[in-house]
Amino acid sequence: MIKTDVLVLGGLSGITAGLSSKRHYPDKKVTLVRKEGTVLVPCGIPYIFGTLGSPKNNVIPDGLLESNGIELVKGEVIEVNRKNKLVILQDGQEISYDKLVFATGSLPMIPPIPGVNKKNVYPVRKEFDYLENLVEAMKSVKNLVIIGGGFIGMEFADECRKGRDVNITVVEALPHCLQMAMDDEFCAEAEAKCKEAGVTIMVNSKVKAILGDGTATAVQLSNGVELKADMIILGIGATPNTELAKNAGITLGFNNAIKVDRCMQTYSDPNIFACGDCAEKISFFTGRPSGVMLASIATAEARIAGANLFSPVHQNCGVISVFSTVINGRAFGVAGMTERVARQIGMKIVVSPHEAPDTHPGGMPNSCMTKVKLIFAKDTGVILGGSLSGGKSVGEMVNVLSACIMHKMTANDIVQFQMGTHPALTASPIAYPIVNAACKAVLPIKKSD
Amino acid sequence: MIKTDVLVLGGLSGITAGLSSKRHYPDKKVTLVRKEGTVLVPCGIPYIFGTLGSPKNNVIPDGLLESNGIELVKGEVIEVNRKNKLVILQDGQEISYDKLVFATGSLPMIPPIPGVNKKNVYPVRKEFDYLENLVEAMKSVKNLVIIGGGFIGMEFADECRKGRDVNITVVEALPHCLQMAMDDEFCAEAEAKCKEAGVTIMVNSKVKAILGDGTATAVQLSNGVELKADMIILGIGATPNTELAKNAGITLGFNNAIKVDRCMQTYSDPNIFACGDCAEKISFFTGRPSGVMLASIATAEARIAGANLFSPVHQNCGVISVFSTVINGRAFGVAGMTERVARQIGMKIVVSPHEAPDTHPGGMPNSCMTKVKLIFAKDTGVILGGSLSGGKSVGEMVNVLSACIMHKMTANDIVQFQMGTHPALTASPIAYPIVNAACKAVLPIKKSD
Repeated sequence: MIKTDVLVLGGLSGITAGLSSKRHYPDKKVTLVRKEGTVLVPCGIPYIFGTLGSPKNNVIPDGLLESNGIELVKGEVIEVNRKNKLVILQDGQEISYDKLVFATGSLPMIPPIPGVNKKNVYPVRKEFDYLENLVEAMKSVKNLVIIGGGFIGMEFADECRKGRDVNITVVEALPHCLQMAMDDEFCAEAEAKCKEAGVTIMVNSKVKAILGDGTATAVQLSNGVELKADMIILGIGATPNTELAKNAGITLGFNNAIKVDRCMQTYSDPNIFACGDCAEKISFFTGRPSGVMLASIATAEARIAGANLFSPVHQNCGVISVFSTVINGRAFGVAGMTERVARQIGMKIVVSPHEAPDTHPGGMPNSCMTKVKLIFAKDTGVILGGSLSGGKSVGEMVNVLSACIMHKMTANDIVQFQMGTHPALTASPIAYPIVNAACKAVLPIKKSD
Repeated sequence: MIKTDVLVLGGLSGITAGLSSKRHYPDKKVTLVRKEGTVLVPCGIPYIFGTLGSPKNNVIPDGLLESNGIELVKGEVIEVNRKNKLVILQDGQEISYDKLVFATGSLPMIPPIPGVNKKNVYPVRKEFDYLENLVEAMKSVKNLVIIGGGFIGMEFADECRKGRDVNITVVEALPHCLQMAMDDEFCAEAEAKCKEAGVTIMVNSKVKAILGDGTATAVQLSNGVELKADMIILGIGATPNTELAKNAGITLGFNNAIKVDRCMQTYSDPNIFACGDCAEKISFFTGRPSGVMLASIATAEARIAGANLFSPVHQNCGVISVFSTVINGRAFGVAGMTERVARQIGMKIVVSPHEAPDTHPGGMPNSCMTKVKLIFAKDTGVILGGSLSGGKSVGEMVNVLSACIMHKMTANDIVQFQMGTHPALTASPIAYPIVNAACKAVLPIKKSD
């Protein structure tokens, strides 16, 4: 029997939780158990199929664990015995713990479509060997159908086209791709960029069945249309991987995620914490459960969980939801609420758009128009969210917005924001779009209805 | 006599002040008077000599004024008559005002060096014709000496080398170039990048005289060394352009800048406001006068001044000082205090560095290592500043830091920061350097001395 003080179960957020606990409690023995030989950068998975070329180029190095004195055990945990504070591995090995962290992540959702189990239908799993096989299998594919036009689906479409002679069709049930994440005008822009790259996009399209004998040959839509396919990728979302926790009697919450408090401690057991996709999330804005899963949220939670194991240090403020993507060279990002979500929950809002080149003057090389749309609460002026599209700088501009949202800045605060500017790196100080959008919002916020 | 409600005197921050006042008081007549036919993007001036090729490509379009209903009067104001609330132009024209905004900017400092007035010695002025002549004159230059290794000097050195067969030497009196703005290790990195581009850098070097008959032929240093020169650029700083205000009896403060309160109202006259390089600045951190001049500060002040003319709306929180630059392809940025400044004023601080590639995995194309160093107050954990070097994303990362500083976030807050991440746009969620630097600072802050 191995004895450890801190036992972490799982991959990406597990690494971060391990590092965080080791930083805060350097005298404790920290052990990470996981099934996978190597862990992939989850957000990098679509890029294996184009830019990176192989899962080999998308590995999180284990050197980080070693150099921080974290033990790595490769194996599959089949039982958590809370009474005796130990876990049992598939090979019979036992590891006793003082504090346990679930970082078991999520599993791809498999929709109940007839034919979904045919051999050339691939959910997006995160295992190295599985993805290596998928890269290999894709070499001979002529007609690729991607079911689901969320981030995974759109990034796969954009990457799989690179260096391949392949027809790609994205099938999305909603009126827009990326609609769960972005407002309509940004969805439309992303769809247009994807089409420009030669991808066919079919929105408002429900899949009825996957056809073929053993091997899929076509995707049949509800309207009768059949799309020829020799490979089908399922990118319709993920579900918390919490079977092990459930079997150990840990209380689950929304969407079967593990119920945790603001310290990431489970409701069921003061010695057990959870973080990442397997842990229940609460919205920063409403306090209600949130289904958002992002690697960046997972690592933020992992830092909190790891620090709090023996004494609470940090509190989770809830999910702001900040992300970015790139579709055919154009970057998109959202921090916090979209206009759609704000209206859905009945918020009185002021919507304020602005656009400006991301260099100054606009004639600097590789200049790109950045579009921003900020959402403020009408009654208080507090920023609720912001959407962006533009060049690469969108990736960090969305983080400027995240900082503004986290600290509940108002339009008035953002007007006074002292951004640094430089001709080659940012918009001009006159035109800086986040500040200008805030300027436009100040008067509508002041006005009574 | 022209009558206006709001009269703005000056260039860059004048445009922003005009836009802001028109936004807040759409019924008021707003008039901008300036000497220059066209206003250049001030931060773009070094780029005229390389990347942009001509001042023509660095003009702030006046369409912004027109489309916002702001009157433009081209002329030089020679007197402000506060008693009668009017200004007199060189051509005898008078303009009466209700509210007046000084946005008269700054003038390049001319050091008291023997020979500084020779005809091929050029201070960095902002006028179109002057710069067009300078671009033309540079065509035949073989030996260019730049006196002053601050931002202007270093950016000129980096740009003037482009597409020219010219020997460039930067002469800096301090031990490092950029030393007024950045910590030593970042200065050293910038110097190395500049040298890599073929520029000669001489630090600890005081200029004794500029030699030659009428035309400068060499720069003589205090240690006797003579640098051959057929053009000399002076990049040693700027001084507030406040002669007009002084003559009108407006109280000046630090460095002869116009004394203003937090609303940007002058101490001397409730109907007169000032913003930009001509207005006195107060440090965000200490409340003491600050000599920092940046276009981004000028526009932030202009937004505040314009909004407050008839009724206070915004307050100036003081100068955080946020800037970025690019030297030979590497970006540098600082927000708030450097380690040097924090130690100079005797702060007890925790200094926390981290570095990570600006993509994830690091094998993504054009990946670049980002270095960050955060400075926290030891007693409170509040962030005081951050320095960065890396790729283009530094331009907006420094703005993430600015938001954190403006709202006095602590290391504890930043650990929980929910940054968005994407393989092509940012560091990985595990390695995101701002958050990781904060993580490393939490324990040293907690520890008592």
